[in-house]
Amino acid sequence: MKTAIYPGSFDPVTLGHINIIKRAAVAFDKVIVCVMVNSEKNGGLFTPEERIDLMRKSIQVSNVEFDVNYGLVAEYAKAKGARVLVKGLRAVSDFEQEVQMAMINSKINPDLDTVFFPSSEKYTYLSSSVAKELARYHANLDEFLPREIIDDVKNKLEIRSDECDGRQR
Amino acid sequence: MKTAIYPGSFDPVTLGHINIIKRAAVAFDKVIVCVMVNSEKNGGLFTPEERIDLMRKSIQVSNVEFDVNYGLVAEYAKAKGARVLVKGLRAVSDFEQEVQMAMINSKINPDLDTVFFPSSEKYTYLSSSVAKELARYHANLDEFLPREIIDDVKNKLEIRSDECDGRQR
Amino acid sequence: MKTAIYPGSFDPVTLGHINIIKRAAVAFDKVIVCVMVNSEKNGGLFTPEERIDLMRKSIQVSNVEFDVNYGLVAEYAKAKGARVLVKGLRAVSDFEQEVQMAMINSKINPDLDTVFFPSSEKYTYLSSSVAKELARYHANLDEFLPREIIDDVKNKLEIRSDECDGRQR
Amino acid sequence: MKTAIYPGSFDPVTLGHINIIKRAAVAFDKVIVCVMVNSEKNGGLFTPEERIDLMRKSIQVSNVEFDVNYGLVAEYAKAKGARVLVKGLRAVSDFEQEVQMAMINSKINPDLDTVFFPSSEKYTYLSSSVAKELARYHANLDEFLPREIIDDVKNKLEIRSDECDGRQR
Amino acid sequence: MKTAIYPGSFDPVTLGHINIIKRAAVAFDKVIVCVMVNSEKNGGLFTPEERIDLMRKSIQVSNVEFDVNYGLVAEYAKAKGARVLVKGLRAVSDFEQEVQMAMINSKINPDLDTVFFPSSEKYTYLSSSVAKELARYHANLDEFLPREIIDDVKNKLEIRSDECDGRQR
Amino acid sequence: MKTAIYPGSFDPVTLGHINIIKRAAVAFDKVIVCVMVNSEKNGGLFTPEERIDLMRKSIQVSNVEFDVNYGLVAEYAKAKGARVLVKGLRAVSDFEQEVQMAMINSKINPDLDTVFFPSSEKYTYLSSSVAKELARYHANLDEFLPREIIDDVKNKLEIRSDECDGRQR
Repeated sequence: MKTAIYPGSFDPVTLGHINIIKRAAVAFDKVIVCVMVNSEKNGGLFTPEERIDLMRKSIQVSNVEFDVNYGLVAEYAKAKGARVLVKGLRAVSDFEQEVQMAMINSKINPDLDTVFFPSSEKYTYLSSSVAKELARYHANLDEFLPREIIDDVKNKLEIRSDECDGRQR
Repeated sequence: MKTAIYPGSFDPVTLGHINIIKRAAVAFDKVIVCVMVNSEKNGGLFTPEERIDLMRKSIQVSNVEFDVNYGLVAEYAKAKGARVLVKGLRAVSDFEQEVQMAMINSKINPDLDTVFFPSSEKYTYLSSSVAKELARYHANLDEFLPREIIDDVKNKLEIRSDECDGRQR
Repeated sequence: MKTAIYPGSFDPVTLGHINIIKRAAVAFDKVIVCVMVNSEKNGGLFTPEERIDLMRKSIQVSNVEFDVNYGLVAEYAKAKGARVLVKGLRAVSDFEQEVQMAMINSKINPDLDTVFFPSSEKYTYLSSSVAKELARYHANLDEFLPREIIDDVKNKLEIRSDECDGRQR
Repeated sequence: MKTAIYPGSFDPVTLGHINIIKRAAVAFDKVIVCVMVNSEKNGGLFTPEERIDLMRKSIQVSNVEFDVNYGLVAEYAKAKGARVLVKGLRAVSDFEQEVQMAMINSKINPDLDTVFFPSSEKYTYLSSSVAKELARYHANLDEFLPREIIDDVKNKLEIRSDECDGRQR
Repeated sequence: MKTAIYPGSFDPVTLGHINIIKRAAVAFDKVIVCVMVNSEKNGGLFTPEERIDLMRKSIQVSNVEFDVNYGLVAEYAKAKGARVLVKGLRAVSDFEQEVQMAMINSKINPDLDTVFFPSSEKYTYLSSSVAKELARYHANLDEFLPREIIDDVKNKLEIRSDECDGRQR
Repeated sequence: MKTAIYPGSFDPVTLGHINIIKRAAVAFDKVIVCVMVNSEKNGGLFTPEERIDLMRKSIQVSNVEFDVNYGLVAEYAKAKGARVLVKGLRAVSDFEQEVQMAMINSKINPDLDTVFFPSSEKYTYLSSSVAKELARYHANLDEFLPREIIDDVKNKLEIRSDECDGRQR
């Protein structure tokens, strides 16, 4: 049985991520979607656990699991017995950086390979950052985020915004 | 069980192809390496059957099969029950063309997806054409072609060259 | 009043072209969509006049005109009193070639400039060639061609195909 | 009458910007060059008002206006009744980022489109940052900045430099 | 003493080529500008000897020689005792193809390296083909070709054009 | 005699740098490898003097010298009587930034040119940062760093790591 890891921040999950998850679930026997927590980057909008909850609300596929990890993806994959990382490839400008990252991961864990799914043309220019920026400007998010989580994102951004206002006073 | 198709001309197979085949064989339960014969392109250096023989001499992996097909890869995949095409991605300039091809294939066969393996850095600039051009100039081919087939390629190119000389007289 | 020329082969018009025409009609006072006939390229699927008919069936906007030209676009623009060419820009790989063409046109006609509309993300990988290739394989064309002309394209391709068969016998 | 907005930092205006302004003034009935002030970026070399003064010294074209805005360009355009943003496209590396920005703006304001003018080949590698860096090293600026503002830029950089020295003592 | 080879078609030499020749003559002790004649491509506008004459009219630098070669550049360089090829790099789209060519040459002649001079920004979109196309349309060539050869190019194109007319009658 | 400057951070020197140094030493009469110290970036892993020591341990070629400079490379080159900068070009994404830097340097010092050596395919994705990141994860460094300095890098990273731990307690 072939297991693939789909690592990412997923803060929050977008329709672009959902598209990759579904396609990976077709291509591989089992897919672990793993929220990678980078100790250097502080915060994020949602906690890792909240991000998993948002994904669980958005997609239910039998051979997809969700997890969170605080270490190196190359070592996480080894622990899970997975030999493939899955990445979405949105645009030319992603390509060289992702290939470098793939090479580094395979140097740390020589049994680990990286495969790329080209983004669906609808999601080429979509990312969590873009979705959050659009949410801040109250744009319609139906083409960007799973319907099930749009209110969660809006609510979280409002709380954050209130906190900021409070702090500044 | 997940089957992936790795389509190509393989005229002849290079070390870059071998590298992708081995990696695909790790990532998927079964891999069918399929020589696609395009009716428009005439000839090629080796016949489709010869190309398969050269691949069989170069690599033996239990979950890898070889085949030849004269139609559309999107329909071939359906007939084989495969939902994934495997492609190597050598360089930025390949990217947009390959993504377009992937989109066309998924329009013909909506159940078919394409995943990309980034070329090993050693084979970034390698292709069958480059290997043949180098062979014509009697360059050392050890870094380009499987050792088992280097003499086959040299011999074939000599026969071809003699035929051309004969025809021109 | 500012007039823009949108030159192309339009053999046949695609939803990508329709998208650019509509956007140009918003940006400029008047848009002339001009079928450029290159004497070197022989044939095409439709005659220039048929291509215009297909466009007229697909789109009616008051400030858009259709025309056909057999010469240089730079001189055609001068004759029409237009100082702007409109081009769609689908992908990074188009960019450098289009900029070179824009420079050549501005050297022939220094009063002529070229502006680019980025393709809608839905049509990034769409072209007349892709649409025709898909039509030959009887794929669903609803996402590629204006509904009004899909049957025309299918019929024309069948006639062509019959002619080829006849010729080969 | 068609109005286009040309948004930017213009800190200070370069010959590359002047080139785009002139070409936009030919293509559109009216052009509003708007200094966009991003609240996050602090400072800049010149204040928004000074930047406008420098532009007014550099270019006088009857259908070009100058303005400053502290909000979103997508909303500013709506307020001005403009449906087109103008952007210069200098190089391949700009392309994907600019297209993403154009998509975001059209999501916030669906009536707003973005058109790109390719940079004149003379200004391909020119930006305000490059011009300021060159000015700091006392390079000849004749090919980079409008003649009318070169002394202003030099003087401002000297004042800044003196302030820094003073602060460090 | 370090000798560099600058290979090319030079049909005819452009201001872009002249720019690279002068810069190479500064960087290396000796530069051989070599017209490479590819047996497959038939013809060209000027004969190899005429191309050299046009270059001699356009540039006189003491450490620059002109030559013509009908074989492989990698073997020509060895015969001349040169270990460096010089290439101009005009744009991103040249890059990957040129790097592949450099790799092939270094495989045929392991002592041969390739260095790239970035095109002057004025000549980024200039090539012999572009210059000839512009000449056919009677555009001003002062920014593209050395002044000394503009009439030669115009005359040659007229002779060619007359020949074609004669042949067609 | 032609002197070339190869500027960089070299913190520490990698096998990719060594490859460029050796090739530059073949192409030019003399090569000065210069550690450029940027006052804005603070620190680095090794001091400039240590970086030179590591390079001296890694490579001995008679026409290569090592130096350190705290100013502008354009002025350093003038002081050394050098008219050529050498740069390695690893990937498409480097290209535009490096060309812009080359233009700035030639504006500050009009007698200074920049030539690019394409990275050997083995080192396309290698940089000092990647090497250090891999070292932190105790990956095998034989393909990244000169054998002679691997222990130095490991030791230095351990000292640094201990210092950090100490500071945090």
